[in-house]
Formats: sequence, C-alpha cells, structure tokens
Amino acid sequence: MQRTIDLWFSCGSTYSGLTLLRLAQIEAAMGPDLSFRLRPFYLGAILDALGPWPYRDGSPKTAYMWRDLERQAIELGLTPAFPVTYPSTTAVLANQVALYGLSQDWGRPYLELSFRHWFETGHSPGSAENLNAALSAVGQQVDATLADVAASDVHDTLVTWTSEAQSMGLFGAPTCVVGGEVFWGNDRVEDAVAWAQRAEGG
Amino acid sequence: MQRTIDLWFSCGSTYSGLTLLRLAQIEAAMGPDLSFRLRPFYLGAILDALGPWPYRDGSPKTAYMWRDLERQAIELGLTPAFPVTYPSTTAVLANQVALYGLSQDWGRPYLELSFRHWFETGHSPGSAENLNAALSAVGQQVDATLADVAASDVHDTLVTWTSEAQSMGLFGAPTCVVGGEVFWGNDRVEDAVAWAQRAEGG
Repeated sequence: MQRTIDLWFSCGSTYSGLTLLRLAQIEAAMGPDLSFRLRPFYLGAILDALGPWPYRDGSPKTAYMWRDLERQAIELGLTPAFPVTYPSTTAVLANQVALYGLSQDWGRPYLELSFRHWFETGHSPGSAENLNAALSAVGQQVDATLADVAASDVHDTLVTWTSEAQSMGLFGAPTCVVGGEVFWGNDRVEDAVAWAQRAEGG
Repeated sequence: MQRTIDLWFSCGSTYSGLTLLRLAQIEAAMGPDLSFRLRPFYLGAILDALGPWPYRDGSPKTAYMWRDLERQAIELGLTPAFPVTYPSTTAVLANQVALYGLSQDWGRPYLELSFRHWFETGHSPGSAENLNAALSAVGQQVDATLADVAASDVHDTLVTWTSEAQSMGLFGAPTCVVGGEVFWGNDRVEDAVAWAQRAEGG
C-alpha cells in the first residue's frame, strides 16, 4: 500500500531547515511505498495565538538552539553562520514561494538552497538576497516568479492548511503526521517513518 | 581515557523519566570507558525564573506531550496511565531522595521504580504513594529514609548543582553535558554519547 507522511514545515523555522536539508537522505532509506507530502504552513500565526514564542532573544534556550543547530548543520556539511536573522520577518512570502515551487518542478531544490543560504549567510528565506540566490540557482527569474506567486492561489491554500494544522493541535515545526499520529521535531522524523512502516506491515 | 557524561535530570520531569527508564540500555551499548554521572537538580526553580512553563495545562503542546510520552513508554514496556499529575508538586523531595539514594546503593533502581510508578499509577515521585512503592521495592523503610534524607546535605548539594546548571544555561531536562557541550532532551542522549565517543577517539 502506498503511504504518505505529511511533513508540516515553515520557511521561518530553523529546525524545519535541518529536516529539509536531510530529507533526501531519509527518503533514500525509506523504500518506494512510503513518501513525504510537503505541507508548508503559516506557523507564525499559530505561535502568535499560543502565547510567547518559545525562543525569545537572549534566553538560555535560544543560545542553546544556535549551538544545537550549528552542530547539526556542520554534520550535514554546511558552514553555518549562526546566529542568523531570527525570528524571520519574511517567512510568509517564503512559504508562498515554497508552495508555488512545489507545484512546479523546482520546489525541493529551491527549499534546500533557501535554507542553506539562510544558515550560511544569515539572509532568511523570503528576503531579497535569499530569493535572488535560491531562485536563480534553480533557474527561475525572481520578478516573474513573485508575480506568478501573487497571481496564484498559494496564499489561500496556506491559510487553509494553517487552519488544518491548528485543528490538529500542531504548535511547532517540523511536524510529521502519519495516520493521525503526530511527531514533532527534526529529531522525530525517523520515528514517524518507523511508525508508518509498522502500520504498512500490520 | 575514562570519560563522563553528566546527565542532569529532575524527578518532576516526564522526559527525564523516559531517559532514566532506558539508561541501562544506552549504557549497555556504550563501552566501559564512558559512563553517566547522575545529576538531579531543582529544574522547577530554573523554569520559574525563565518565565511561563513550557507545558501549560490545556495547551496543544501539553496534549502532544502526553501522547508522545505514551508512545515512548509503551515502547519501553510500560503500561502508562497518562495524563498523570503534572506539573509535579513533590519534585523537590523526590530529587532529595534520589540524590540520597545515589549516594547509597539503591539510587538507580529506586529512580526507575519511581518514574515507572508515576507513569503507570499517576502518583508523582516524592508523593507518599510513590515513596512507599518505590522505597519499599528497593528494601528501604520510608520514615527512616526520609529522616536520613533530612539529616543529610542533599538539599545543599541540590541547591549548588542547580546554580551550576543555571550558570551553564540549562533550561530543561534531561540534559546531557559532555566536555562543555550541552544536549537537551531524551531525544539527544545518543548524540551526547556519540559526541563523547568521538572526543575519546580524537
């Protein structure tokens, strides 16, 4: 049976970046009957509704986040320049471009380049610098692409998907959902895969 | 070279329980040159100073925590009865008994029994029911043990250790610290072990 894991993520989420940057590696070990469905959403809107953001500037948890991200990014072969701009102020546009790209053939490579650019140069996904770098690297012209994005229905879809995420109780990203089971965090992607594989076998 | 990983935990922390309950399994795969040093601390005091608690009652994140803990506890062979009393109001005493037990020969089995009792019956570590069950299971008399704990210096040590944890920027538990590197969470214990092993080889 073909089975799908919904991978909910936001282009303003650093840990979503870690997952996207190692997703091909996870997929390679997964087998052909299982696949990820990429679901960008407006995580910021959900977090705003939930109260204070979990990673406040200057908190010990935020200091830890940067070091933790750094270790993992180095492990993935990146040369990170943490801390980078955070929280991102350009995540909404970045998620729109991502969803539009996923409906074309350049969404996945664009996402990888965009997160890598954020981590290595500090320019967040959706910023002019990041769009220039990541879109041109996948052969897309920035102005034309942004016009196509604005004319498309991606914003409406993202609003709908964000409501869906909120109604499932999602509160962070990345989050994998498979058969109603929720696995929050870059650390738990493999658990979601194992869960899906057990469900397949059962 | 003999190397130590400091495992910071609190008896009021659900995820600390998951780690303690699988610690023997992790140690079995570690080799003789590496060991954990168990460091209970007053996590509640640190969290109080940092602002609102991360798992508020009724929040989506708390609902997720219970399901996440349930899946992992079942994986460890438990029959969990989540949600259990949380936050714990008896963590201070529980940490004192734990540290005292670790200076004797019954600390480790006591901790495992105490967390298991919390997860399976709902009575938190440090409560009368939990102390009765876990202390008697390791052959200790409750009243005599509590008198010994009160007469010991464990509280002063816990205060000192909590200051040490705070000065290292710890903000949650379990947290592994090895060679100045901090790994937060039950999900990251294996990363701490891998880090220590690489440091050993280098």
